[in-house]
Amino acid sequence: MMRAARYYGKEDIRIEQIPSPSIKPGQVKIAPAFVGICGTDLHEYLGGPNFCPEHPHPVTHETIPVTLGHEFSGVITEVSPDVKGFEVGQHCAVQPTIFCGHCAACHDGALNVCHDGGFVGLSGGGGGLSDSVCVSATHVFKLPENLTLETGALVEPLSVGWHAITAAPGLGPEAVVVVMGGGPIGLATILCLKAKNVHNIIVSEIAASRQNFAREFGATEIVNPIKDNLNEVVMRVSDGRGADAVFDCAGVPASIKSACEIVKVKGTVVNVAIWEKEIPFNPNWITWKESSYKSVLGYQKEDYEAVIENLRTGAINPKGMITRKIKLENLVEDGIKTLIHDKDSHVKILVDVNDK
Amino acid sequence: MMRAARYYGKEDIRIEQIPSPSIKPGQVKIAPAFVGICGTDLHEYLGGPNFCPEHPHPVTHETIPVTLGHEFSGVITEVSPDVKGFEVGQHCAVQPTIFCGHCAACHDGALNVCHDGGFVGLSGGGGGLSDSVCVSATHVFKLPENLTLETGALVEPLSVGWHAITAAPGLGPEAVVVVMGGGPIGLATILCLKAKNVHNIIVSEIAASRQNFAREFGATEIVNPIKDNLNEVVMRVSDGRGADAVFDCAGVPASIKSACEIVKVKGTVVNVAIWEKEIPFNPNWITWKESSYKSVLGYQKEDYEAVIENLRTGAINPKGMITRKIKLENLVEDGIKTLIHDKDSHVKILVDVNDK
Repeated sequence: MMRAARYYGKEDIRIEQIPSPSIKPGQVKIAPAFVGICGTDLHEYLGGPNFCPEHPHPVTHETIPVTLGHEFSGVITEVSPDVKGFEVGQHCAVQPTIFCGHCAACHDGALNVCHDGGFVGLSGGGGGLSDSVCVSATHVFKLPENLTLETGALVEPLSVGWHAITAAPGLGPEAVVVVMGGGPIGLATILCLKAKNVHNIIVSEIAASRQNFAREFGATEIVNPIKDNLNEVVMRVSDGRGADAVFDCAGVPASIKSACEIVKVKGTVVNVAIWEKEIPFNPNWITWKESSYKSVLGYQKEDYEAVIENLRTGAINPKGMITRKIKLENLVEDGIKTLIHDKDSHVKILVDVNDK
Repeated sequence: MMRAARYYGKEDIRIEQIPSPSIKPGQVKIAPAFVGICGTDLHEYLGGPNFCPEHPHPVTHETIPVTLGHEFSGVITEVSPDVKGFEVGQHCAVQPTIFCGHCAACHDGALNVCHDGGFVGLSGGGGGLSDSVCVSATHVFKLPENLTLETGALVEPLSVGWHAITAAPGLGPEAVVVVMGGGPIGLATILCLKAKNVHNIIVSEIAASRQNFAREFGATEIVNPIKDNLNEVVMRVSDGRGADAVFDCAGVPASIKSACEIVKVKGTVVNVAIWEKEIPFNPNWITWKESSYKSVLGYQKEDYEAVIENLRTGAINPKGMITRKIKLENLVEDGIKTLIHDKDSHVKILVDVNDK
C-alpha cells in the first residue's frame, strides 16, 4: 500500500492509502519527489470534474477517483526488463501525456493533441502525488546531474512555455515580444524567451505581485493594461512596427482584441490559454495586417528535451519559480486553498513527497 | 475630356465627362479595355462610401467623386520617358494597389496591407471605368500574347484566390481542401487550387447556381451546409484526418466555427472574407488541434505574376468566369443592379469600355 492524493470530485480530494502499482512492459516505476500544483488542478477542485474522467477514459479506462499530480520529478525504482537506457536510482522528469496511438493526431506525431488524450495525474494511470507511479519509458526524461529534483518538477510548466514560443517563427534577439498575463505559464514563457535571447519582452499584467515576478524573471517592460496604453508601449519599443509575437497567457476577452491590435504585419498571436466560452472576435482584426492566430496545447517530447538542455546550460534560470514547498498530507490546505485565495503571491507550490 | 464612371455616394454613380489624365514620371497611361465589377463596388453602391474617400485619402489626397473600376485590362497608350520596358500598344493588366511607401507594412514589402493603402478605382487616382487612366509602371503587368484582354480583366480576382492559397503551406495533389462559399472569390480560389493540382476540392455553398459554377470550375465535392453534413464529407474524403486547409470565402458566423471543426490537426484556416461585425469565436476550437487561423487581404506583385503565368500555360482555365459583358453607359442598370438582384447567376460581369 502507499499514499496517494485522490480526486473524487468537486472540492473532494483525499490523501489515502491505495495499492502500490505494478510495473508493466515498456514502463518505468518512479518514486515521485516533487510535484507542482497546476491551474488545472485548481479547476478540477473548484469546478470539476473536467479532465478527470466521470466515465471510463478511452485510453486508461479509469473513472474517478484518480490520483492527481502531473508536474513531477522523481527517482527510478524499477525498470521493466524490456526497457533499455534507464537504471534504478536515476533522477527524472515525467512527461505526463497520455495518448491513444491511432487517431489522426497520433498518426501525425502530435500526441499532445490526441483526440482521446489525457494526462497521468488527471486521466488515470496514477499520478505524481503518490509514493509510486508507473509510466511509459518513452515519457521519462533523465535529469542531468546538475539539476535538482525540485527543478525537475518545473520541466512540465516550462515545456508549456517552450512549446508556445516554438509556434512563433523567427524569434531572435531583436524580436519584440508581448506576454499577456503573468501567471505561472506567462512567467514560464518569459523564462523560455530569455533562453532564446529575446531582448524585448513586454509583459501585460494587472496584479502588482505578478508584475514583480515578471520583472524578476526577465520582462523588460511591464504594462498594467487597465492603467497604461499597451499599444503605445509596444509601438515605442518596436519603432512603430508592432510586436513580432504576442503570447496570450491571460485568456480574457479583452486580451484577444488587444493581441490582434499590437501584433505587427504578418506577426503571430499565440494563444496559450484555455477559454471558458465563446468571445467576440472579428477576423478583420488580423486581416488588415495578415497576421496569424495560432493556438497551442501542452508540449511534445522535443519541448521536454529542449527545456532540460536549457536548464542544464543555465539558459533557463528557474530560480524564483518555487514559492513554497508543502507536505503531501497538507495538499489541500497549504497548496490548493492557498493558490485559490492568494494565487498572485505564488508561482509554483511544490509538494515534497518525501517530507513525511 | 473622356468618359468615366464616377462614384458620388450611396446609390449615386454617374457616367460623365471629365478631363483626361496627364501622365506623370514613373507612370504608364492605359486605355482600359475590360473592367470587372466586384463585390466591393456593390458595397460602395449599396452602403458606401467605405473605401471611397469622404475625406482626402492619405496617399491620393482625393475625395469623392472618384472614378471606379479596379479589376481591369487595357492597352498602353503612353509611357513616361523615365519608364523602361513598356511600349505603346502593349496589352496589360493592372494591379490597382495604392500604398504610402513608408509605413511598417510597406517597409516589410507588404504593400497589400499598407496602413494608408487603397485601390486605383476606389481611392482616387482614376480607375478602369474610364477611357484613360495613368498608373505606376510598377503595377502594370504585360499580358502574354495568347491571353485576351477579357482574360486580363480576370487577373485581379484570380490574384485574390492565388494570394489566399499561398497562405496555406504544402498544398499538393494529395491535399484535401475546403472552399466555403462559391461566390466569385471562392470560384477564383477553386481555379487556383486546380492550377496547383489539388485533387480534392470540397465546396460548401447553399445556392444551386453557385454550386453549378463550383462543379464546372473544378470542385470534386459539393456540400450544401444547410442540408448536408460538411464534417462527415470532409472526414470521408480525408480518411478521418480533416481538411489540410479551409478557405473561408463565405464570411458568415457559422462558417468560422465550421472551418475550425473540419480542419485537420495543425491545418490552416484562411479567411478570405471581409466581416461586417464581431462574431462569436472560441480559441479552444483551434487549440484542440493546434491549427492556425490566418487572414489574407488582396494580393502582391508575386500573385499577379503567378496568375498571369498560370493563365499563359493554361493551368488556370478561366473559361466560364465571364457571365456577361455590358457597355460602360449601362454600368448601373446592367451591371451593378443585376449583380445585386441576381448575384448567384453571375460570376463576373465585365464592362467592355470600347463597346460604345
